[in-house]
Amino acid sequence: MSNNREVAKLAGVSVATVSRALQKPELVSLKTRNKVLSAIKKLDYRPNLMAAKFRSGKTGNLVVLVPTVANLFFARVISGMQEAAHQKGYSILLCNTFGDPEMEEGYAKMVHTCQADGVIQLRAYNPFPAQDTGGSSTALPMVNACEVLDNTTVPTVTLDNRAAARAMTEHLLQLGHRRIAVVMGPKNSPLTRDRLAGYRDALQEAGIAFDESLLCPGDFTLHSGRKAAGELIERKDSPTAIFCENDEMAMGAIQRLKQSGLRVPEDISVAGFDDIAFAQFSDPPLTTIAQPAEEFGSTAVSLLIDLLEGRIKKAPKVTLPFELVVRSSTGPTSNKETVQ
Amino acid sequence: MSNNREVAKLAGVSVATVSRALQKPELVSLKTRNKVLSAIKKLDYRPNLMAAKFRSGKTGNLVVLVPTVANLFFARVISGMQEAAHQKGYSILLCNTFGDPEMEEGYAKMVHTCQADGVIQLRAYNPFPAQDTGGSSTALPMVNACEVLDNTTVPTVTLDNRAAARAMTEHLLQLGHRRIAVVMGPKNSPLTRDRLAGYRDALQEAGIAFDESLLCPGDFTLHSGRKAAGELIERKDSPTAIFCENDEMAMGAIQRLKQSGLRVPEDISVAGFDDIAFAQFSDPPLTTIAQPAEEFGSTAVSLLIDLLEGRIKKAPKVTLPFELVVRSSTGPTSNKETVQ
Repeated sequence: MSNNREVAKLAGVSVATVSRALQKPELVSLKTRNKVLSAIKKLDYRPNLMAAKFRSGKTGNLVVLVPTVANLFFARVISGMQEAAHQKGYSILLCNTFGDPEMEEGYAKMVHTCQADGVIQLRAYNPFPAQDTGGSSTALPMVNACEVLDNTTVPTVTLDNRAAARAMTEHLLQLGHRRIAVVMGPKNSPLTRDRLAGYRDALQEAGIAFDESLLCPGDFTLHSGRKAAGELIERKDSPTAIFCENDEMAMGAIQRLKQSGLRVPEDISVAGFDDIAFAQFSDPPLTTIAQPAEEFGSTAVSLLIDLLEGRIKKAPKVTLPFELVVRSSTGPTSNKETVQ
Repeated sequence: MSNNREVAKLAGVSVATVSRALQKPELVSLKTRNKVLSAIKKLDYRPNLMAAKFRSGKTGNLVVLVPTVANLFFARVISGMQEAAHQKGYSILLCNTFGDPEMEEGYAKMVHTCQADGVIQLRAYNPFPAQDTGGSSTALPMVNACEVLDNTTVPTVTLDNRAAARAMTEHLLQLGHRRIAVVMGPKNSPLTRDRLAGYRDALQEAGIAFDESLLCPGDFTLHSGRKAAGELIERKDSPTAIFCENDEMAMGAIQRLKQSGLRVPEDISVAGFDDIAFAQFSDPPLTTIAQPAEEFGSTAVSLLIDLLEGRIKKAPKVTLPFELVVRSSTGPTSNKETVQ
């Protein structure tokens, strides 16, 4: 492989001019630049961009920490990120972390070792050591999106999960449902907490007592939804509607209900959250909360680039809009007793 | 931020000893090493690992080029990669490329610019310029998995897609089906070509003439499966079975068939390929070809690390086993005329 000395010789310019032509082309005349580029081509010279970028303190890489790419909501978020980054000349380095703090911290270190400029974290965990915050609200080269930290000092992009869950619960109440079960997400997730709060808000406004026994554990997988539905229908006072905190669990629940001979929604209504691609292919098609997933990704990328390029002073908190999408998996309750 | 000179001063050792303690700790006494580490901690010194790794020619990063993470088969492959890499002390940098050659080439360049050691490509496209092959069978720091290049000189990990499609077609033939439609994958994909070849193999052995009009275009999405099924059932001589080249298309097809009042499998059988998590939650549960997706990922990672660490001489071609999984979406044909 050639070096920049040989390039300079062939182009008839100085080594410094070669560097300038590569790193700050705006400082070099078009004629000089073309001479350099033609020499580079002839010599098959590959400039050591890493060294160059290290000197300039920029790599153009954005690290994205995603708990699992096997989640169709995150897949859409990532797609939005990739497009926004590509447009702005940045590259996305996706890191599938299984939500493991050690792996997240390892990848976040790529910023300190000059392999990446910044981090987008899709989970409520700060992968940077505490001392890195340095007091300033925008000290960390990080944006937190989707599931966000409470009271964080970094820019965030999130949905009003509480309002969305409230809207879904109100939809079920309007259909006459009074015993509405909730299949929850992972225990310590702020999403679970906020969606549960929205459910309780709606019940309270409707004057219906909160019944903790209607809450079922779940982990956002198809299997956990199936399991929860199985437990719910074996109860004496089984619910007339099941609100699942994501679509996969709702689809798992629907399978279990149908296997028991129950009709959805005639005998029991099921609602999801996210509006993944499979939601409209579910049988029956799923009533759910649509999130602007791609916009989560593009907004997070734009904020991170603004942060890295010094255009952000105070960390913005962006809240994206949701939409209640009513399909056929929810309907009026057939349980006349429960209708007031 | 501190530099290694300050660390050396505080630790009471030379700058060279600080470097050694960080990069070749086996050459330094435990006592010296502890002195250095304690000074590093006190000064909050962050060694420039990138520079260190550049000198050693290793980054520990493996670039993975994936056409789209919104594909549940790839999601499982990636999960297998991540686990294998983590065990061996490497990091996976996932690059969602949309199958765009320019993006793939951009990410592959990370190897030349010392940001990554090697590349795993999940699509039949060589992202390295031709001259990089250099004649040797293992000249490229690349492994090609899942959809692989023909006659490539790099290690490959693939499934015998032809044999798998043949097994599925034989299953449908055994059930009495004679008019079996195929909803294909993307046109130029070797997967499409090989699966179609396996379908033709089985027809030929059964003495059934190949009918090109039974082939429908598809692109591996739910929507394309739904569209293809709609077109197939409007034909006069509609098929009694539809073999979709992936599960998403099969699930899209099933929805369309049911909407037209057709029962699956009583009126028409539907088969998929991949065995994604949703396959067993489809209504009816999907007959499909199970691929060891996680093993694709872990094998590709192991091969790439063997290649990078000089343990591979001739590029291995690994073929992983498939399994025909018969669920309820396929059954005997009710069309008596077609049964011989």
